[in-house]
Amino acid sequence: MSVPDANIHPVATGFAAETVAKHQAPQELVFYAGWFCPYVQRAWITLEEKGIPYQYKEVNPYKKEKHFLEINPKGLVPAVEYKGKALYESLIICEFLEDAYPTYGPHLLTTDPYTKAYVSIWVDYITKNVVPNFMRLVQAQEREKQEHARQDFYKGLRGVSEKVKGPYFLDNRGYSREDVGEKWASWAGELEKRDSVLHTQSNKEYYAEIYGRYLRDEAQSEAAKAIREGRAIP
Amino acid sequence: MSVPDANIHPVATGFAAETVAKHQAPQELVFYAGWFCPYVQRAWITLEEKGIPYQYKEVNPYKKEKHFLEINPKGLVPAVEYKGKALYESLIICEFLEDAYPTYGPHLLTTDPYTKAYVSIWVDYITKNVVPNFMRLVQAQEREKQEHARQDFYKGLRGVSEKVKGPYFLDNRGYSREDVGEKWASWAGELEKRDSVLHTQSNKEYYAEIYGRYLRDEAQSEAAKAIREGRAIP
Repeated sequence: MSVPDANIHPVATGFAAETVAKHQAPQELVFYAGWFCPYVQRAWITLEEKGIPYQYKEVNPYKKEKHFLEINPKGLVPAVEYKGKALYESLIICEFLEDAYPTYGPHLLTTDPYTKAYVSIWVDYITKNVVPNFMRLVQAQEREKQEHARQDFYKGLRGVSEKVKGPYFLDNRGYSREDVGEKWASWAGELEKRDSVLHTQSNKEYYAEIYGRYLRDEAQSEAAKAIREGRAIP
Repeated sequence: MSVPDANIHPVATGFAAETVAKHQAPQELVFYAGWFCPYVQRAWITLEEKGIPYQYKEVNPYKKEKHFLEINPKGLVPAVEYKGKALYESLIICEFLEDAYPTYGPHLLTTDPYTKAYVSIWVDYITKNVVPNFMRLVQAQEREKQEHARQDFYKGLRGVSEKVKGPYFLDNRGYSREDVGEKWASWAGELEKRDSVLHTQSNKEYYAEIYGRYLRDEAQSEAAKAIREGRAIP
């Protein structure tokens, strides 16, 4: 039986392929990844921002290696292997990298308890109000559902962009509070220019293949199924 | 227009009332609570476990005070006011209390990065697999749906109790690995005996009023509506 998502291009391309090539040597930290997965890129960007030594291993979602499944029975990516034990869930991995490598690269989380909790509230907001509405917009097949999902997605983005001090979330560097649309454009523009974002990016045409399946609502990932059935993203 | 949940008993009773009475004096930290809310009790237990000085303020969900809404526009509880600024989301508050009061009481989170991330994975598991299935079980009106939800709830509890080292989640103190059911019973039994749990508990008959509405699927809270409509708990 053929699986609709099985024809995924097997490896990263473009800038991301160069980054993968630089991270083939064995390291204490092994990063199990799928080049096409936005949750993977979230953890990958953290590794790149902090300059943590890691070994990149591409996981074929339809042929998972024995060792990977032994340490990580559900087979989820992103995952890290650290001293022989696995961790998964992208946001948990990001915070783990900050905790486990305190002397590497910039601190991505503030140490001020109030500000750290404030950032957590807005990360949680994105998980609940931005990501699922983006997925609903991508998977919607009827014009009316697309319009509805697009408005929800805009509302989610505007909610968080209201809070952007600029150019990054917590910084305030001469960013005029004009209107929500412009602020969002500026924030996204800054993030897109980060080396860590560029260096974990494959070529657009390969993403197009993957997202094409979502756009036609044929994708069979757990996230796609959940969105299709109106459930929360697992 | 009458709101079905509006007849909630206005204040904590039993042990919880005694705890409330001890925490009326103004403090740097103000805890905005609803005595009946399990998310509130999660943050409240943390305050009690650590012995943090706090002022308890009961929030009437249908008559919210002006100051509370000014610092916390969505009006969600639990919330804390800390130096004039609000934080909400129970798990974020728990971690904030640990970060902001490092010299108070026991450390509820380990400082080992791997173990901390491992615990986060299982807290996230409970959010996704235990809490919503409990709510579905409580709200199900038909025998078949109840049976289905109960099995899902058992599955969720067994998944996490499998990982209990005993008597608490990370400790291993002579707890025999018998069967999942016994382990869960033992873990829950230990947690129930904690002073912080007892001291934040109101009298059972008052919870019965609240949960009666859920059991008849008449509750109008945002969580109840979400479960009824098959959406994620907001």
